[in-house]
Amino acid sequence: MRKEKEKIKIIPLGGLNEIGKNLTVIEYKNDIIVIDCGLKFPDEEMLGIDVVIPDTGYLQKNLDKVKGIFLTHGHEDHIGALPYVLKEVNVPVYGTKLTLGIVETKLKEHNMLDSVDLRCVKPKDIIKLENSSVEFIRTSHSIADAVAIAIHTPLGVILHTGDFKIDYEPIDGHVADLARFAELGKKGVLVMLADSTNVERPGYTMSESTVGNTFQKIFSEAKGRIIVATFASHIHRIQQVITAAMKYDRKVAISGRSMENIMEVAMELGYIKAAKDIFINIDSINKYPENKVTIITTGSQGEPMSALSRMAASEHKKVNIIPGDMVVISASPIPGNEKLISRVINQLFKKGADVIYEALADVHVSGHACQEELKLMHTLVKPKFFIPVHGEYRHLKQHGELAVKLGMNKNNIVIADNGDIIEVSRDSIRKNGVVMSGQIFVDGLGVGDVGNIVLRDRKHLSQDGILTVVVTIEKQTGNVIAGPDIISRGFVYVRESEDLMEEAREIVRGALKKCEEKHITEWASIKSNIKEVLRMFLYERTKRKPMILPIIMEI
Amino acid sequence: MRKEKEKIKIIPLGGLNEIGKNLTVIEYKNDIIVIDCGLKFPDEEMLGIDVVIPDTGYLQKNLDKVKGIFLTHGHEDHIGALPYVLKEVNVPVYGTKLTLGIVETKLKEHNMLDSVDLRCVKPKDIIKLENSSVEFIRTSHSIADAVAIAIHTPLGVILHTGDFKIDYEPIDGHVADLARFAELGKKGVLVMLADSTNVERPGYTMSESTVGNTFQKIFSEAKGRIIVATFASHIHRIQQVITAAMKYDRKVAISGRSMENIMEVAMELGYIKAAKDIFINIDSINKYPENKVTIITTGSQGEPMSALSRMAASEHKKVNIIPGDMVVISASPIPGNEKLISRVINQLFKKGADVIYEALADVHVSGHACQEELKLMHTLVKPKFFIPVHGEYRHLKQHGELAVKLGMNKNNIVIADNGDIIEVSRDSIRKNGVVMSGQIFVDGLGVGDVGNIVLRDRKHLSQDGILTVVVTIEKQTGNVIAGPDIISRGFVYVRESEDLMEEAREIVRGALKKCEEKHITEWASIKSNIKEVLRMFLYERTKRKPMILPIIMEI
Repeated sequence: MRKEKEKIKIIPLGGLNEIGKNLTVIEYKNDIIVIDCGLKFPDEEMLGIDVVIPDTGYLQKNLDKVKGIFLTHGHEDHIGALPYVLKEVNVPVYGTKLTLGIVETKLKEHNMLDSVDLRCVKPKDIIKLENSSVEFIRTSHSIADAVAIAIHTPLGVILHTGDFKIDYEPIDGHVADLARFAELGKKGVLVMLADSTNVERPGYTMSESTVGNTFQKIFSEAKGRIIVATFASHIHRIQQVITAAMKYDRKVAISGRSMENIMEVAMELGYIKAAKDIFINIDSINKYPENKVTIITTGSQGEPMSALSRMAASEHKKVNIIPGDMVVISASPIPGNEKLISRVINQLFKKGADVIYEALADVHVSGHACQEELKLMHTLVKPKFFIPVHGEYRHLKQHGELAVKLGMNKNNIVIADNGDIIEVSRDSIRKNGVVMSGQIFVDGLGVGDVGNIVLRDRKHLSQDGILTVVVTIEKQTGNVIAGPDIISRGFVYVRESEDLMEEAREIVRGALKKCEEKHITEWASIKSNIKEVLRMFLYERTKRKPMILPIIMEI
Repeated sequence: MRKEKEKIKIIPLGGLNEIGKNLTVIEYKNDIIVIDCGLKFPDEEMLGIDVVIPDTGYLQKNLDKVKGIFLTHGHEDHIGALPYVLKEVNVPVYGTKLTLGIVETKLKEHNMLDSVDLRCVKPKDIIKLENSSVEFIRTSHSIADAVAIAIHTPLGVILHTGDFKIDYEPIDGHVADLARFAELGKKGVLVMLADSTNVERPGYTMSESTVGNTFQKIFSEAKGRIIVATFASHIHRIQQVITAAMKYDRKVAISGRSMENIMEVAMELGYIKAAKDIFINIDSINKYPENKVTIITTGSQGEPMSALSRMAASEHKKVNIIPGDMVVISASPIPGNEKLISRVINQLFKKGADVIYEALADVHVSGHACQEELKLMHTLVKPKFFIPVHGEYRHLKQHGELAVKLGMNKNNIVIADNGDIIEVSRDSIRKNGVVMSGQIFVDGLGVGDVGNIVLRDRKHLSQDGILTVVVTIEKQTGNVIAGPDIISRGFVYVRESEDLMEEAREIVRGALKKCEEKHITEWASIKSNIKEVLRMFLYERTKRKPMILPIIMEI
């Protein structure tokens, strides 16, 4: 009995069956290792929500075991929940230089920088913990300084690829450490968790450097200003714009708060190679001839408040789009953003700018491995067990099938869900129970104070608006002494619907009278009577179902 | 002075700078010809809106001139506004057999069939009007029986392509009447209006028959049931499913109301070629072995109430997804629907079905011409003037550029907006003024009773909910005698926010007291005082801005 088999627990708390809020827990004896701590942007039905973070109750309960949060790279879906989670789980945060640089600006915004223990690591570093150790391995991704994480335990190695692609011509010259993956594979990897984002795409993801070729062509031909929108954190993309600007003798100005923030970090840490005098302030762009100006900006997803959207809508204080401007949208639409981007493109065209986007030229490549790159990783690492991560169910399932095609036994693959406890021994893997998991909504200052009931109400309000019905009743007699007043918002044009509203009042009066006749005096009953007759009346007349909010005042 | 130059007016009332609600007015002397009468599905910000239709005030004002509505094909974005527009502009409706068949089912639903004059035409038919005549010319599209429309006037020919592609192997054997386009071109076409949807795509759109090849492969390999989701109106796609089913000895059941409706029309009118005994009722699918069953269903866009979505969510009464089912989603996501479709795919995979969609196999082709097909049309028709239609601004602009590349003079191309009056003479084209145009929202039974104020309120309500503040005041003294009561919906979990709400009441009491002290008795002032203090308080405490609705009852 005493010699219970040793186990490693792998518990994904986010990133499975969804895109975003990546957080994986690896637990061996007294060591709990957290890989990434990301947020997710709200779905359409999460009305009014700012961001969504993972439920980390499990970590809070086992706080004494948590040795640290280990970051693979600096994207929001991998670091964005840190300011919220660190408030409950204040443990050391390990990451590479750029990753921590971005984390720092984030913590600064939340006034938390002083209270967090940030520990900078380099690829090949190994952090020793009580019963295990954590190794960082260089990969390529659409942000510099990305790493995979290998956890060494007496039972074997757990390898988490993080988000990755294989880029043989990366902008910074640092190719993924394929040799280390091969070496680990040769020695034997117990479990691999690997990025499934692009598993549906055959072939290879093109090298980041191919985008540079397109930029060079654009810069060689453009006669006016060049405005490039891309992800603020995509240092290599930005580097390529700067390189092209230097070659074609253009100055570079930066627009957009997140772009300015990350550029500051990237410059300070030496991630951008540029002649110092190439940068100009956005205020002074008009002092230069148009063919000497490049602007790098946020807004590649058409985000309504972003710099590019404001330029397109003539709401940007510093940049006014003019005929001859060449706007390059160097990004793919994230699903759900297509219409926003399309609107910006239309506005820019209308202002006379030329617009180049993915449909028209090779101005973007993905940061995730396609099928052949995934096959390379599987072939190098040859894990005994495999858990596809970072994807919706369809991606996880197809990544599992890809592994089977490469010869893996189907029973050695676990398609899991957030909260699953996956138990691994030297020779077995299985799901064994669940821990609390889920999504916590952040809305303004509130973390978790908006839940499904509030969202259901917002949805209802958004569809047909609200009718408030107020009646003042005399306590002693039960007589109505003021009202019913009906005020609506988001239902109909009030001016054109006066008759309808007067009829509605009449309906409520009737309901109140009936209650009186039947000696119904309970507020709850009176209210539900009012609701019911109004609901029926309004639906019959308008086929709409506004929220109805009866309020009884008693004096 | 009397001999003013003769003019044709071309007035697009919908379909420019947008996708949908296509409606073009061609006016020559006493003839107003309306081409198409489509609806648009609401954008995300049009909360609670069912459909959007064009403003046809111009037609209502010139009712005596309107000779008819001439339909190019039976898609919603070309016929969907008929039930609303015909109520105001009851003129003859001309269309091909299938188009009118679909219009009939639509009018039936609106109880309008008896009051509308439907006139069936065939390709090559010419309808003579007072001063002009209207000719129908066969094209190919993703629905059978599509036509282009040529309007013959003494000043020249106006050609409207409608939605089209060039398909040399169409399912019904009827290739677009290229000879007639060439003939018109040879004689001289004054103005062409042409579909711009796919102008950003190089090359050719594949033939519809290529999808049939994929179906044959799928049917030859599938061991369980095959469930194909596609657009209800895509008769040729449906025919290809049926053809494959016949070849592989499977029965066919239909699911989804719109699919059933259109299949009934298509069968009755002879647009589907099938052995009669191939169809089985959806109720009896379980009487057949799984490898003998095909189900054709709606829901290819992931629409939440569609048959496929209900199957995926285990809410379909007749069809229960089981492992071994092969689901084919034979459609492209319409921008905005990606997440809905993705959700359905994930649910189907989770239930053990195999799912095939566009990312994985050639199960869909577009119905619109790509660049090379557009070039063919321009080359055949050789119009003097050109107005790109059916597209957002980016599409219209690029379609204009394509025409310039083919040799057209830039000044002969008009990029217009809905409502523009485009005046054409034998040798000139120009914009000259505008007519009222715009979008009218249909919400339930209301047509036009929801406008921007209502939508703005719905948006506001959807983001942070509403707080209703009720106070009862004694008229004579101005004293508060009941309340303030605060009721919120969609703002915060009330139970967990009792303190916040109590503080809010205190804030309102304070504001009321101040009003009393300052002898402010005007309701409007009291209300705006309450609003202001509450807004500031709530924003400071929650960083949210719920709608605040103060109500004062007087007794």
